[in-house]
Amino acid sequence: MTNGTLYGVGLGPGDPDLLTIKAARLIANAKIVAYPAPVGGTSFARSIAAHLIPVNAREIVIQVPMTLERAPAQAAYDLGATAVRAALRNGHDVITLCEGDPLFYGSFMYLLARLAPDFRCEIVPGVTSLSAAAAALRLPLAARNDALAVVASPLSDAELSARISESDTIAILKLGRHLPRVRTLIDSLGLTQNAYYVGHATLSDQIAVPLKDAPETAPYFSLLLIAKGVDPWL
Amino acid sequence: MTNGTLYGVGLGPGDPDLLTIKAARLIANAKIVAYPAPVGGTSFARSIAAHLIPVNAREIVIQVPMTLERAPAQAAYDLGATAVRAALRNGHDVITLCEGDPLFYGSFMYLLARLAPDFRCEIVPGVTSLSAAAAALRLPLAARNDALAVVASPLSDAELSARISESDTIAILKLGRHLPRVRTLIDSLGLTQNAYYVGHATLSDQIAVPLKDAPETAPYFSLLLIAKGVDPWL
Repeated sequence: MTNGTLYGVGLGPGDPDLLTIKAARLIANAKIVAYPAPVGGTSFARSIAAHLIPVNAREIVIQVPMTLERAPAQAAYDLGATAVRAALRNGHDVITLCEGDPLFYGSFMYLLARLAPDFRCEIVPGVTSLSAAAAALRLPLAARNDALAVVASPLSDAELSARISESDTIAILKLGRHLPRVRTLIDSLGLTQNAYYVGHATLSDQIAVPLKDAPETAPYFSLLLIAKGVDPWL
Repeated sequence: MTNGTLYGVGLGPGDPDLLTIKAARLIANAKIVAYPAPVGGTSFARSIAAHLIPVNAREIVIQVPMTLERAPAQAAYDLGATAVRAALRNGHDVITLCEGDPLFYGSFMYLLARLAPDFRCEIVPGVTSLSAAAAALRLPLAARNDALAVVASPLSDAELSARISESDTIAILKLGRHLPRVRTLIDSLGLTQNAYYVGHATLSDQIAVPLKDAPETAPYFSLLLIAKGVDPWL
């Protein structure tokens, strides 16, 4: 029997209309879907594509503990990969649902690392939260020969400062509890008037505002954009 | 009469299946589409969406001279913006076709800069060539707290070296005639074994290979990815 193919399917930032035609077709024809969900919570990835998942599709839920240590999550991906591996061995394709783009700060790479050596894998790229945030702000991410830096907010102030100082546009992702610290840093660099906050891009509760008007607390799925050279058209 | 809305619609990297549902619907219902085309050539953006453009839609073609100086292209966008402005003033929406993502090294920002002060503008984000290239290589662009740098190949060797040395993953876009110089630079930094070349991502003539196997000449729509921490699964 021929092994099945592992698909990593990008779903875009949240608005189901931002799925690609290819992603929508793969999901609508899926016999097996897989996706991560926080232990005890619902899967954001599944919620984006819920309207497309066939009612009789099998669903492999990878229950990921939301801990700061990496070992429990990696153990969850070991378990998930074992279930996916069995399905692939039985000749079934597995459609893995991935928020945003599968290879841009995505957890799909943990499945990929475990299964790519043994199975055919195909990635369907998706619209990133970064592109969605820029669209909400109408702010160019990069023009002409601009340099764009993309970083995660847990980096140290020194690392963030270095990336900010060197690039034309800087995106700081995964804000969450780091917002107050990052906001203070940006202010100390004199860049608050160049900075914008986007939370829950493309969802019904999207916020896209200058940093000075940002809320005090930010969800994990939020980001800052700092644009030195261009103005957005809010 | 109410003015029309200017839409900047990302079409993704080239495969029409990577249009979003939203982009496909807007184009299929368009009364007026606008897009850039090189003087004397055909429009790549139009070719991605050609199957969706209604036969009776009006097409505003922005004829862009392919010169290194910026003034002729900017004059072309002045002309294009004048035509689009007239349509918006007459109450018509204008669907602007944009390769990739409209705000990621896109020319849509030239229309946006001219028209955003006076008209409602909506951006539909698209899949970038960067995400498509990573998908073709099965190479994570960023994992965990990785820093990703995105640069354009016309930057100087010194600037490119600095961005390469500081980041975990580096994307060098708009290769074209710069490939030989950039290849020599990457070799001098000892990073050839970490570098990958992707040309014409998602099109029928896509190439996705280690840099050592890259062709001698590269099209404008090609890029290099340098990944220090992770291996792709080619």
